[in-house]
Amino acid sequence: MSNELENEKLSGYGAIELGGTRTICAVGDASGLVLNQTVIETTTPDETVAKILDYFKDKDLKSVGIISFGPVDVRQGSATYGDILNTPKIAWRKFPLLKTLTDALNANRDEKLPVGFDTDANGSLLAEVTWGAGVGLNDAVYVKVGKGIGLGAMVNGKLLHGMLHAEAGHIKMSVEAGDDFKGDCPSHGTCFEGMASGSAIAARWGKPARELNDKPEVWELEAKYIAQGLADIILTLSPQKIIMGGGVLHQKELLPLIRKNVVEYINNYIDTKELRNINSYIVPAALNGSQGIKGALKLAISAEEAAMRN
Amino acid sequence: MSNELENEKLSGYGAIELGGTRTICAVGDASGLVLNQTVIETTTPDETVAKILDYFKDKDLKSVGIISFGPVDVRQGSATYGDILNTPKIAWRKFPLLKTLTDALNANRDEKLPVGFDTDANGSLLAEVTWGAGVGLNDAVYVKVGKGIGLGAMVNGKLLHGMLHAEAGHIKMSVEAGDDFKGDCPSHGTCFEGMASGSAIAARWGKPARELNDKPEVWELEAKYIAQGLADIILTLSPQKIIMGGGVLHQKELLPLIRKNVVEYINNYIDTKELRNINSYIVPAALNGSQGIKGALKLAISAEEAAMRN
Repeated sequence: MSNELENEKLSGYGAIELGGTRTICAVGDASGLVLNQTVIETTTPDETVAKILDYFKDKDLKSVGIISFGPVDVRQGSATYGDILNTPKIAWRKFPLLKTLTDALNANRDEKLPVGFDTDANGSLLAEVTWGAGVGLNDAVYVKVGKGIGLGAMVNGKLLHGMLHAEAGHIKMSVEAGDDFKGDCPSHGTCFEGMASGSAIAARWGKPARELNDKPEVWELEAKYIAQGLADIILTLSPQKIIMGGGVLHQKELLPLIRKNVVEYINNYIDTKELRNINSYIVPAALNGSQGIKGALKLAISAEEAAMRN
Repeated sequence: MSNELENEKLSGYGAIELGGTRTICAVGDASGLVLNQTVIETTTPDETVAKILDYFKDKDLKSVGIISFGPVDVRQGSATYGDILNTPKIAWRKFPLLKTLTDALNANRDEKLPVGFDTDANGSLLAEVTWGAGVGLNDAVYVKVGKGIGLGAMVNGKLLHGMLHAEAGHIKMSVEAGDDFKGDCPSHGTCFEGMASGSAIAARWGKPARELNDKPEVWELEAKYIAQGLADIILTLSPQKIIMGGGVLHQKELLPLIRKNVVEYINNYIDTKELRNINSYIVPAALNGSQGIKGALKLAISAEEAAMRN
């Protein structure tokens, strides 16, 4: 390949968002701009990885950031760092995602690519506090209510991992009076995800959420469970802001109902300016669905910065 | 006063633990040793502050650390930093605790005392990660089940404050089948504290916990609610260890029952070495009831170190 053609390679930070049904690959710049992006179906690990590598083969990367559905091992230094853990997606269970991707991306390189890795929810939060609805905050959470429910959390300016990572989709719910739905979670029945995820809505009402938008009773009940989950998160993590994403939130009347139920439950016990201004406390993501891939991009940018310092 | 007598003053770090029913004042050294301590009854703010100041009037302090029951404003830079907030103890509501104590302690000093301030639960956690059951951990929680229920949390090596501080005693509980107790919390009814605190035990069974130790049904139900609260905390904060304190835990069969219920609920969804070793994951405080005052002492030590750096 001539030097001229070599120079035409798209150059920037690599970003990969491995989702349960689709995977996004992108190249972006240091300002968070996505210069190029492709969406591929998430199928088996082998097929999906091959498509990811195919996308990046003509890109010139400074570093790479990867976010993934969970549970996933985000503990640097762990023997299984970067592996998918006990996911219900059997084909992906114990798959060494990070190692497979970085080994392949580094194959023809003299110097190893700096790499950042986290959960999809932490990645989305990172993008939102960097370029979206949470700029300037040190203590914030991202709650995604889609097919499942995920929590990303930042405390004192750093993403929360701890023992593994947050799994607040699985906190136990108090079942509303008169509700006889048994919950949709194979592990925990009536947990937050089992009662309020997109899958739970479909299981409870017999059709997907997008076909239920003329049924107010669906959204009144949904708002109660989401509010219960958010109240638990507020009382435990004390975030300065809750940023919401995921397909279920596309239902427009939902967010005002969630806010009302959160305020009612907290019942002035915590009296802060944030809770008094509930409309700016519980807010939709500002990055219009690109918070995931931009989070991966931010992880790549930070990984390169960390490598330059060392 | 002669120089000789002046030299006989007890010298060290000042520590104050303001509790709901009793307040501890102490002087300690940099190793965490309590050199001298007194316990006073917590009555009105005026009386209690006068007794605290009386204790310290013949002590030579390098700095002071104060921990308090909540809700309390622990946000440095806030206009009400150091004030007691919406406590049910009416006499203490809006009392400027930190300002009152530090103004008085600084009255005859040329150089202001460095001061540290936090919640009682964060203070207890700080002592346990410094000298107790959580040494070396960066992500841990302290759960106190006494008259009320409190949560102290550390994430990435720093105490969690966020919007205010954790109030996980007030997360909503799923009421156990057949349990018709309405809960003891005036703000949230059947919350964690409303169902499982020492006050809730007394309200439910008609006598205090210490008179119920021959009733296994009391402790089986109690363990279920505490385990539910701990599971929520695990799924949200992902701590590397849970350290338990408070009078209710004096009931010996309680901790094994709590561990069993936590493992059952998590149901292997989170598969970590910590959860596989549940006996070393959920543990009693190691500082034998002095975790609060030693936490205040550690805050004083850190405040002096921070002042020396500046």
